[in-house]
Amino acid sequence: MFNRRNFLGAGAALVSGAAWAQTSNSGLPEAASMDNAATQKPLVPTSGPDYNPVVTLNGWTLPHRVNNGTKEFHLVAEPVEREMADGMTAYLWGYNGQSPGPTIEAVEGDRVRIFVTNKLPEHTTIHWHGMILPSGMDGVGGLSQPHIPAGKTYVYEFDLVKSGTFMYHPHADEMVQMAMGMMGFFVVHPKDPNFMRVDRDFVFLLNAYDIDPGTYVPRIMEMTDFNMWCWNSRIFPDIDPLVVSKNDRVRVRVGNLTMTNHPIHMHGYDFEVTCTDGGWVRPEARWPEVSIDIPVGAMRAYEFDAKYEGDWAIHCHKSHHTMNAMGHDIPTFIGADKKSVAEKIRKVKPDYMPMGTAGMADMGEMEMPLPDNTIPMMTGWGPHGALEMGGMFSVVKVREGISAGDYSDPGWYENPPGTQAWEWTGALPEPTRAKDAKTVLTPKP
Amino acid sequence: MFNRRNFLGAGAALVSGAAWAQTSNSGLPEAASMDNAATQKPLVPTSGPDYNPVVTLNGWTLPHRVNNGTKEFHLVAEPVEREMADGMTAYLWGYNGQSPGPTIEAVEGDRVRIFVTNKLPEHTTIHWHGMILPSGMDGVGGLSQPHIPAGKTYVYEFDLVKSGTFMYHPHADEMVQMAMGMMGFFVVHPKDPNFMRVDRDFVFLLNAYDIDPGTYVPRIMEMTDFNMWCWNSRIFPDIDPLVVSKNDRVRVRVGNLTMTNHPIHMHGYDFEVTCTDGGWVRPEARWPEVSIDIPVGAMRAYEFDAKYEGDWAIHCHKSHHTMNAMGHDIPTFIGADKKSVAEKIRKVKPDYMPMGTAGMADMGEMEMPLPDNTIPMMTGWGPHGALEMGGMFSVVKVREGISAGDYSDPGWYENPPGTQAWEWTGALPEPTRAKDAKTVLTPKP
Amino acid sequence: MFNRRNFLGAGAALVSGAAWAQTSNSGLPEAASMDNAATQKPLVPTSGPDYNPVVTLNGWTLPHRVNNGTKEFHLVAEPVEREMADGMTAYLWGYNGQSPGPTIEAVEGDRVRIFVTNKLPEHTTIHWHGMILPSGMDGVGGLSQPHIPAGKTYVYEFDLVKSGTFMYHPHADEMVQMAMGMMGFFVVHPKDPNFMRVDRDFVFLLNAYDIDPGTYVPRIMEMTDFNMWCWNSRIFPDIDPLVVSKNDRVRVRVGNLTMTNHPIHMHGYDFEVTCTDGGWVRPEARWPEVSIDIPVGAMRAYEFDAKYEGDWAIHCHKSHHTMNAMGHDIPTFIGADKKSVAEKIRKVKPDYMPMGTAGMADMGEMEMPLPDNTIPMMTGWGPHGALEMGGMFSVVKVREGISAGDYSDPGWYENPPGTQAWEWTGALPEPTRAKDAKTVLTPKP
Repeated sequence: MFNRRNFLGAGAALVSGAAWAQTSNSGLPEAASMDNAATQKPLVPTSGPDYNPVVTLNGWTLPHRVNNGTKEFHLVAEPVEREMADGMTAYLWGYNGQSPGPTIEAVEGDRVRIFVTNKLPEHTTIHWHGMILPSGMDGVGGLSQPHIPAGKTYVYEFDLVKSGTFMYHPHADEMVQMAMGMMGFFVVHPKDPNFMRVDRDFVFLLNAYDIDPGTYVPRIMEMTDFNMWCWNSRIFPDIDPLVVSKNDRVRVRVGNLTMTNHPIHMHGYDFEVTCTDGGWVRPEARWPEVSIDIPVGAMRAYEFDAKYEGDWAIHCHKSHHTMNAMGHDIPTFIGADKKSVAEKIRKVKPDYMPMGTAGMADMGEMEMPLPDNTIPMMTGWGPHGALEMGGMFSVVKVREGISAGDYSDPGWYENPPGTQAWEWTGALPEPTRAKDAKTVLTPKP
Repeated sequence: MFNRRNFLGAGAALVSGAAWAQTSNSGLPEAASMDNAATQKPLVPTSGPDYNPVVTLNGWTLPHRVNNGTKEFHLVAEPVEREMADGMTAYLWGYNGQSPGPTIEAVEGDRVRIFVTNKLPEHTTIHWHGMILPSGMDGVGGLSQPHIPAGKTYVYEFDLVKSGTFMYHPHADEMVQMAMGMMGFFVVHPKDPNFMRVDRDFVFLLNAYDIDPGTYVPRIMEMTDFNMWCWNSRIFPDIDPLVVSKNDRVRVRVGNLTMTNHPIHMHGYDFEVTCTDGGWVRPEARWPEVSIDIPVGAMRAYEFDAKYEGDWAIHCHKSHHTMNAMGHDIPTFIGADKKSVAEKIRKVKPDYMPMGTAGMADMGEMEMPLPDNTIPMMTGWGPHGALEMGGMFSVVKVREGISAGDYSDPGWYENPPGTQAWEWTGALPEPTRAKDAKTVLTPKP
Repeated sequence: MFNRRNFLGAGAALVSGAAWAQTSNSGLPEAASMDNAATQKPLVPTSGPDYNPVVTLNGWTLPHRVNNGTKEFHLVAEPVEREMADGMTAYLWGYNGQSPGPTIEAVEGDRVRIFVTNKLPEHTTIHWHGMILPSGMDGVGGLSQPHIPAGKTYVYEFDLVKSGTFMYHPHADEMVQMAMGMMGFFVVHPKDPNFMRVDRDFVFLLNAYDIDPGTYVPRIMEMTDFNMWCWNSRIFPDIDPLVVSKNDRVRVRVGNLTMTNHPIHMHGYDFEVTCTDGGWVRPEARWPEVSIDIPVGAMRAYEFDAKYEGDWAIHCHKSHHTMNAMGHDIPTFIGADKKSVAEKIRKVKPDYMPMGTAGMADMGEMEMPLPDNTIPMMTGWGPHGALEMGGMFSVVKVREGISAGDYSDPGWYENPPGTQAWEWTGALPEPTRAKDAKTVLTPKP
């Protein structure tokens, strides 16, 4: 019962046919493939226990079939072309047509059988990060199993003994294969559909690449100086917004497979981590945060009640990670621009030039000639002007009355009167302002 | 009712007059300005609910006026000259004369109106990091509001719906403006003056700059290789000590706006984080620590009872962050200095020179010629010799009987007999030593 | 009563005699020294309260003598030769013959007297990281005491007022001396032997060096770009396995004295942090994890019940930290290897060469000529092929029926039938497979 009914979202496409003919032999489940980077609709369960499916930002969930009680999935490791943003494509390695690979969703207590076909030019394996399973299913090439040679298919099969949020990635030529984009989410929903239930459940992976402007393939030897800081191999302004209906309970699950911590900062709310890749966090142990520092090789899921309408920025708080490709070793041209200071600068830097002395805000507003296949360092437009961002940045859009299952962009938020910073022109506005502003902040009883 | 009574500490100065004439038009509150980097006395509240004001290390609190029940503040974004240490000045961007900007203090339930005048050469905004407020007051340029153009004043106005420790910084040309030093603390005291009350309450921000020796302006494109690791844009030995009376309850609030985690290690005590920028941490969730790892874009406040007298080092535990400017790419000259080893080194490095073969401790003790406007990599003196430190380092000085409100340096701690590491000269000292040492550790009942 | 009975493990050696004659004068306890990097057997207590001694990975515990009720230890700071792996020796600074120094073990309530002899070419001190002690015993050179000059012995003496896991390292020319390998563990066992008792208790320190291939001495000025990511100054494949008997309660204590966070990921289990260098973590505050992110200057101890047999990888999850020495600035040669993609790459990179286009897995399998004194970037062999790892990587080996106190390598785990990923050859295997696999995961009641 391979069900496509709920799978085909706007812009989605299942590639099958010639390219996959060799995998459609007896017994092997079809390997669905995705040909674009749009966020696909959640894959609503059609059999077994009920659960609220996740939404993978600029990604999708892999369909499965049920074979004599076991859920069967088919992953294909292969080279892919990933559109990181409009005008910027990367040649990566991934699964089933994209990097990251599709999200796998199943239910606590399920038995799963996962076929992994290797279409890479070298061997690979898959490690099921965080899962409790037999040693021989753990996917460490050479240690738990032989590597999967190029051209071959291996089978992993195990019980899902606990619910939670896990990741999958190779444990074979690991540094290279992860630096090329091979990774995905594995969400195990609780058997009890009311346990930790939310209304909206977003997942994305943090990944980083070093791709010189004008080139297509990541420099896989780079350890720290990356220039593409991504969510699901996408960069701002082409990371989709997180669309939420007011008063929804919302979960955001974020895994980090880069080389450094990323503090994910969401505006407008405070919230708590409710789940790690190690399991659910007991309520009394939770901390309030506005930035969730996500360690490498770890997942953090945080939750909040969407009480406050608005367009709320969400981004990594390392300021260089909300920039697109840029050189990190060019000199500064900023002058402190006070007369006495400017004079001193010229004493130590006699060739002091006016270019860039006023910061770099202009860059967010002007169109500069760029090499092929890159996008500006600072870019993006909002309702009130240039956003001057890049990389790991998006917007949580909370609106009244969005239908369950509707994730389409509602456009920009219109601030109610008196709730937007205003230019001072010599007098305060009407006194009713204060009252209006207060109302906006009052959560529903 | 602009009150200066408690504001003027030793060394403080309010700059007004000509430079500020243009902001003194009708309605705009005066924009106080600070002309030096000394730690100012806490600004004791003179109206409204009582609270224990914070002490900003090498910084100050911004005075406000009350206008028809609303607290009004005036921040001026502008180029500043910051003395990072004696002999080292940086040309930064900041607020009201210094970088970081002044600490804003108010009380839960207050309504605040904050005027922001832009005297930078480019546009800016202010984001109120961690606060619950209307979307249009969130300060993301282009998204929540138009940018504040150079020369203009904008008004932010909102209710303080929760107590806690927040930060403010631009969300416009963000990477550049934060790399130039634009940031500050926003402390909202609890409405109930007994909730989480402490006797001493210190705040400082972690920030980092890349300023080549002999120059004045940070290289704002740098992502990782900073050479000035600062607390409130100051470096050791010119970060003020944290002065504490024995048995005080002490809170230290530290925010991180650099590009990497900083583990703030305090000697002599263990302690717990009681507050983040997301809110107060429930007691049962707290962890004991001796190093508080502070993520980027996050704040951690920890507390302890000052039971143990002494001079206790406090510093970032990344050893390169307690150094001042140094090159990171020079070769090592340390020999292992065992005869057999030295011979082997010369085999692979025939030009092996004696210079530096004995480590770098000499550098803390000697005076070497330096370029203008920099200070030695390792420096500082204590009561027993060279401290060989720099950057993110200071001392918590716990003494018996320091008056409330007194933050002046009490000098060096004199160790009681038998409690200081001593040179071995062939025999143990008097047996009373053990007893004395024990006494020192016994906290008051 | 200097007891060597339990100290001499296989491969261990106590160096005494000529080299140490000068320290054997009246009163000074003998300074035991270690001449190799093998994991030594735990040092079972022979007097005082009972405790379960720790096992230091590729290290040892320092013997002590009891002198009139005080436990006396003798540390010697000195240049050492450390075998980081077979074929790779580093010239470091350490204690008593090795880097890291030996683990110190004592019991809550003990009074300790620690003699520190300085055989380095420059002054030093020791800071007892995390301990509650008098200010003058805190070991900050210049602040708490005069530095210990080369050739001199100093005495530290204090009460152990709390149990826990602490570290020791210099606080004198600190950046240099820690970058050279000077550090060790100080474990204080609880007075109540049943408090937090475990069956196996492993300790190791994370440290990092920058040693160019073919050289022997770390480049101590390096801040971020290290090439030797170590556990106790050892790298894979020569970090010993953590050998555990099935159903043992196991603790792993890890301290970090590098320059960056390390997320220690252990396969096959989830677990909780039970202790930091600040103290024991109350049970209700603990989080489930599969990767423990260990901040710099911090210690994390986590615990688990060894319910699942197998060979479980344990490693830092930063993928470059499970590599040995490599350059980080060489270009990538990976092609995406789809016909259309290859053509595009040649358009932007006409000299596109086949070398390395298929990833780097070959490197784990081939023998390439290397300079003297280095080991391959990716290396190691398991029962099923090349492991392609390096640096911070080892294996937790859980087996039925290993005797208490036996830490010898049990060889590779043999996966029970049906529990190992298998090659797909067109049909599913016998249905009994599922049942077998399930059994493996069932913990004993």
